[in-house]
Amino acid sequence: MFQKYDIIVVGAGHAGCEAASAAANLGSSVLLITMNMGTIAQMSCNPAMGGVAKGQIVREIDAMGGKSGIISDQTMIQFRMLNRSKGPAMWSPRAQIDRMRFAEEWRLTLERNPNIDLWQDMVVGILVKNGKVCGVKTSLGIEIASDAVVLTNGTFLNGVIHIGEKKMGGGRTAERAATGITEQLVELGFTAGRMKTGTPPRVDGRSLDYSKMEEQWGDEKAGKFSFTDTVTPLQQRCCWITYTNGEVHETLREGFEKSPMFTGRIKGLGPRYCPSIEDKINRFAERERHQIFVEPEGWNTVEIYVNGFSTSLPEDVQYRALTKIPGFEKAKMFRPGYAIEYDFFPPTQLDLSLETKLVQNLFFAGQINGTTGYEEAAAQGFVAGINAHQKIKEKQALILKRSESYIGVLIDDLVTKGTDEPYRMFTSRAEHRLLLRQDNADERLTPIAFELGLVDNMRMKKVEEKLANAQAIIKYAKTNSVDKNKANPILANLGTTEVNQSTKLANLLGRPQISISNLKEMSADFSDYLSAFDKETIEQAEIKIKYDSYFEKELEIVDKMRKMEDKEINPDFDYNQLQSLSKEAREKLIRIKPRTLGQASRISGVSPSDISVLMVYINK
Amino acid sequence: MFQKYDIIVVGAGHAGCEAASAAANLGSSVLLITMNMGTIAQMSCNPAMGGVAKGQIVREIDAMGGKSGIISDQTMIQFRMLNRSKGPAMWSPRAQIDRMRFAEEWRLTLERNPNIDLWQDMVVGILVKNGKVCGVKTSLGIEIASDAVVLTNGTFLNGVIHIGEKKMGGGRTAERAATGITEQLVELGFTAGRMKTGTPPRVDGRSLDYSKMEEQWGDEKAGKFSFTDTVTPLQQRCCWITYTNGEVHETLREGFEKSPMFTGRIKGLGPRYCPSIEDKINRFAERERHQIFVEPEGWNTVEIYVNGFSTSLPEDVQYRALTKIPGFEKAKMFRPGYAIEYDFFPPTQLDLSLETKLVQNLFFAGQINGTTGYEEAAAQGFVAGINAHQKIKEKQALILKRSESYIGVLIDDLVTKGTDEPYRMFTSRAEHRLLLRQDNADERLTPIAFELGLVDNMRMKKVEEKLANAQAIIKYAKTNSVDKNKANPILANLGTTEVNQSTKLANLLGRPQISISNLKEMSADFSDYLSAFDKETIEQAEIKIKYDSYFEKELEIVDKMRKMEDKEINPDFDYNQLQSLSKEAREKLIRIKPRTLGQASRISGVSPSDISVLMVYINK
Ligand SMILES: Cc1cc2nc3c(=O)[nH]c(=O)nc-3n(C[C@H](O)[C@H](O)[C@H](O)COP(=O)(O)OP(=O)(O)OC[C@H]3O[C@@H](n4cnc5c(N)ncnc54)[C@H](O)[C@@H]3O)c2cc1C
Ligand SMILES: Cc1cc2nc3c(=O)[nH]c(=O)nc-3n(C[C@H](O)[C@H](O)[C@H](O)COP(=O)(O)OP(=O)(O)OC[C@H]3O[C@@H](n4cnc5c(N)ncnc54)[C@H](O)[C@@H]3O)c2cc1C
Repeated sequence: MFQKYDIIVVGAGHAGCEAASAAANLGSSVLLITMNMGTIAQMSCNPAMGGVAKGQIVREIDAMGGKSGIISDQTMIQFRMLNRSKGPAMWSPRAQIDRMRFAEEWRLTLERNPNIDLWQDMVVGILVKNGKVCGVKTSLGIEIASDAVVLTNGTFLNGVIHIGEKKMGGGRTAERAATGITEQLVELGFTAGRMKTGTPPRVDGRSLDYSKMEEQWGDEKAGKFSFTDTVTPLQQRCCWITYTNGEVHETLREGFEKSPMFTGRIKGLGPRYCPSIEDKINRFAERERHQIFVEPEGWNTVEIYVNGFSTSLPEDVQYRALTKIPGFEKAKMFRPGYAIEYDFFPPTQLDLSLETKLVQNLFFAGQINGTTGYEEAAAQGFVAGINAHQKIKEKQALILKRSESYIGVLIDDLVTKGTDEPYRMFTSRAEHRLLLRQDNADERLTPIAFELGLVDNMRMKKVEEKLANAQAIIKYAKTNSVDKNKANPILANLGTTEVNQSTKLANLLGRPQISISNLKEMSADFSDYLSAFDKETIEQAEIKIKYDSYFEKELEIVDKMRKMEDKEINPDFDYNQLQSLSKEAREKLIRIKPRTLGQASRISGVSPSDISVLMVYINK
Repeated sequence: MFQKYDIIVVGAGHAGCEAASAAANLGSSVLLITMNMGTIAQMSCNPAMGGVAKGQIVREIDAMGGKSGIISDQTMIQFRMLNRSKGPAMWSPRAQIDRMRFAEEWRLTLERNPNIDLWQDMVVGILVKNGKVCGVKTSLGIEIASDAVVLTNGTFLNGVIHIGEKKMGGGRTAERAATGITEQLVELGFTAGRMKTGTPPRVDGRSLDYSKMEEQWGDEKAGKFSFTDTVTPLQQRCCWITYTNGEVHETLREGFEKSPMFTGRIKGLGPRYCPSIEDKINRFAERERHQIFVEPEGWNTVEIYVNGFSTSLPEDVQYRALTKIPGFEKAKMFRPGYAIEYDFFPPTQLDLSLETKLVQNLFFAGQINGTTGYEEAAAQGFVAGINAHQKIKEKQALILKRSESYIGVLIDDLVTKGTDEPYRMFTSRAEHRLLLRQDNADERLTPIAFELGLVDNMRMKKVEEKLANAQAIIKYAKTNSVDKNKANPILANLGTTEVNQSTKLANLLGRPQISISNLKEMSADFSDYLSAFDKETIEQAEIKIKYDSYFEKELEIVDKMRKMEDKEINPDFDYNQLQSLSKEAREKLIRIKPRTLGQASRISGVSPSDISVLMVYINK
């Protein structure tokens, strides 16, 4: 009934969609199997993409030819560049999304891909032959053959939903859980764990009093995620901010004795950085209030997402507490918040390519690896899709470096350190974050994607042009000066010291107070010159001039560390022969099988002296 | 947590949506509870509205202020007026619909209604006090109070899905079944039954070879369902026709031994007039081929609905048989066809208002009453919603007559005769079908809706205007003549006898060969005169002139029968006192409690002599 496919992707969440799309774009024939074709690329929780560190990931996916950025651009209802007032490494694009439109666009994007077939069914197991995956088995009893399989089951594996003392099977609200896979994988020798996450109640926007909240508008002109020529909306929707208070907290506390988290009914660890509201008032008892973002779920619907109010307390407690929030006095709920517990597989069982160590050609991506977040899932799916293709075509795996992408940091962290609680990306996780900016994701990654065959010549040329143009602007700014009489009034105005001779544009731009638009005011020539370039290019030049010295220093550090990063270790290296390794280091090294000395050095329990021992042997 | 509502509607299928909307528009506060807010107004089976008799129902719902027609107009991808070549009583509007858009428009329509609140949850039972419903209980254990409850559970009550020998719980593909309600109602004294229905596989449109099929385009200019000023699309999508053949049938037969229908695993009776393909080749073994309509599921999606190929055979048999259909040689399936078995409640347990006889203020509507089809469900929901409102406001129930609407026929049939197999509307079920036309649904029903307060003055005036204008045209045609020299060449051309003197326009129009546009050619004056009127009005006049004598006769029959129809019977009438009634008649009369002598006469087992007996007593 089915042809043999190159690759089967299980699950059409954010990971699965990017995986299928990437593998298919590289030329693999892909079958995407998902339990419900009506919920492809469903946003399980908040209708938003991006944010701090996450926005950078979306830009990276886009720079390499992934689809999350394009689809976000097409379906956003509000856009903000977060942290504009901080350094450019912190600038983070974030968009509020129309949930239904997003899912629809993804579905149409997949349908448009001639290499992707779709099948609605539940996968209940994988087929393995000689230690290599060779297909899947579905709930209908069908066996479908393939050379590789990517599992992206999200929160569905043995999912259990909790609301107060009530408990029901389910992979997401109103959706069935998936069964069978965990049990089989454990039998095959995999270790499984249990995690949990939660979501807030949804309310009827018609029942809220927005006059009691602060408006939060998007950027004046909506920015975008994609480096391609997507168009973002001219109008945006407003969001709102309100706050909890002592009364809200008091009410919530009344439900604590029925809380599935506090009573121990939920065993899995939840995301520490995305805590439930009961967690927040429990852990930060001194805080008098917590911020609540009131976010529409789309262009037309009245459904509202109560961001910051994730909870699994009994629904009546949720309701009573909600109504004590300013603006929510008459709130009507559409659906209660809930927590969900699900199986995950500690990602130390994976190689950096996201292939499992135990079963060849089997890849895991997304929440199944213990992460949380659409962006983290999409990034892993994208890489797993690429590497499934590379593997079966006997090509080199794509392994992004920590120094070149957040995606590299994400996967290296997961595979090397593992995670006990839902892993979420932060800028602080990236030691070279100065280099991993949203503005240069194309510069960092498009060439790699071009090499792989994921983006076309046009896109590559666009990046080269942007770089060349930015370089031209930099050169202009370094060689042309501004007249002191033109400069000084403006400098005085900006509160920075005046100059006593004509000064290079680049030098002035080095000052924190001065932006490129100030320079344009000072120099009509420069202004004229810039008119030939687009906004992104000018911004790129500005960032490079302003922060050049920092970037240089960071690059030097990367360079120094590269020696260790480039030192490869044979995955079959026999650590048992190294008697001088500590016991803990030996065990971990055997388990994780680091690919490089750098990766080995990041394994917790592997000390600098262990690394020295290793270095001696590896240099032999 | 919840206010007390006037009316709770359980289930947001086609019945539930119309019920909630109608009750809310009459001024009741409504809570619509549904298991999944992501599947509101989901089309479980084919993405189409209308068709023979069903299209008339949609027009009737629209004429009374229901929403199904408007939403169909907004979301159609193709429109055809079926049976244009037959008499106007057979003209039936049918539209191919964009499935996702339809569901979304319904959801937004409900959200826009200030009297409707939404709650996502599963209702597991009703609350009853002193024989009267007073609310519902949900799976979260919440009790919500109301004065009336409308149950519209569709195919979800203890739903079981069958594909070949596989069987799983579910209310629709990838959706959970609903449990609890049947058991409670049976405990309360209701009788429940079991029915089944099925749906075809969905395939990937990219894998079909359309050159081997016949194109089927919509009408040149898309017509519409609604009497309001909806706008239908300028462009339409093409559908296709292909046929099964001996090979297809042979292949299907190979699966018979695993067929859940033929092996008796499915107990419920299926829709005789919407048979599965295996049923068709089994029952009509002599037929060499069956027609297959190849219908897109929306504007942009590649998913295709294989109309005419409903099946619950094993998915591999479905697949192999499909690929033997011309154009389907390389077909790829997205999801297999399946059958579903579900509980229904024989509708003889209802009053003509759709209120249950056993529990006051409890109404049933839609597939739960043993019907099949979106239109039948929507119609019942609409009436149940109205009557729930009327009941709690102590107003008279809306009971539509058989002589004034298909909806009246539908409900009278259900309540009076009951049904063993899924009930579907046909024109042949309506004895006065000549009067129940799609073109005059507004004339028949808008005044009734206006009385109820469901449509506004504007709409009422529009109907009156249309009638008055049509009357004016009729008068003009009856009083003005056409010159024989102008007429004869055209008459000759049309193959009808020439006239030898100037003749009244109306007389010529009485001839079957002649249409109003022919008359316009013959008479510039008439053409001028008509230019002041819109298309619908002119068509109305044409129909009335052409078929006037038939309509008159039909009206006379209605009039004669009305005597019996108007003869009311007290629902508490003690049939036991009438010794001369046959035993069967007495039992059925006691069970059904007919409201009128007409209704009594339609109960199977109640003979004309029983009616005579009754008449004597009732006239007393
Ligand atoms: C209740 C809830 C709250 C959340 N809260 C947050 C939050 O606050 N912050 C945050 O960053 N993230 C949150 N998330 C996480 C976020 O939704 C996920 O990280 C992201 O969706 C993961 O993407 P994924 O592709 O890995 O899996 P999912 O989006 O879960 O998609 C999995 C897909 O696989 C399919 N599938 C599963 N098993 C099978 C099978 N056996 N056969 C066929 N198909 C299968 C499913 O139908 C689904 O389409 C939350 C998730 C949930 C459910
Ligand atoms: C597989 C299949 C094939 C079909 N084939 C055909 C066909 O060939 N021809 C045809 O004319 N018709 C067909 N139908 C029937 C058509 O879909 C239905 O007649 C129509 O949808 C009935 O509308 P409804 O509103 O009564 O119920 P549904 O559309 O079934 O909607 C029921 C709603 O109630 C909700 N619900 C159910 N129980 C509960 C509860 N306890 N609490 C809260 N919410 C609840 C559900 O979530 C759903 O939203 C088919 C249906 C199915 C499922």
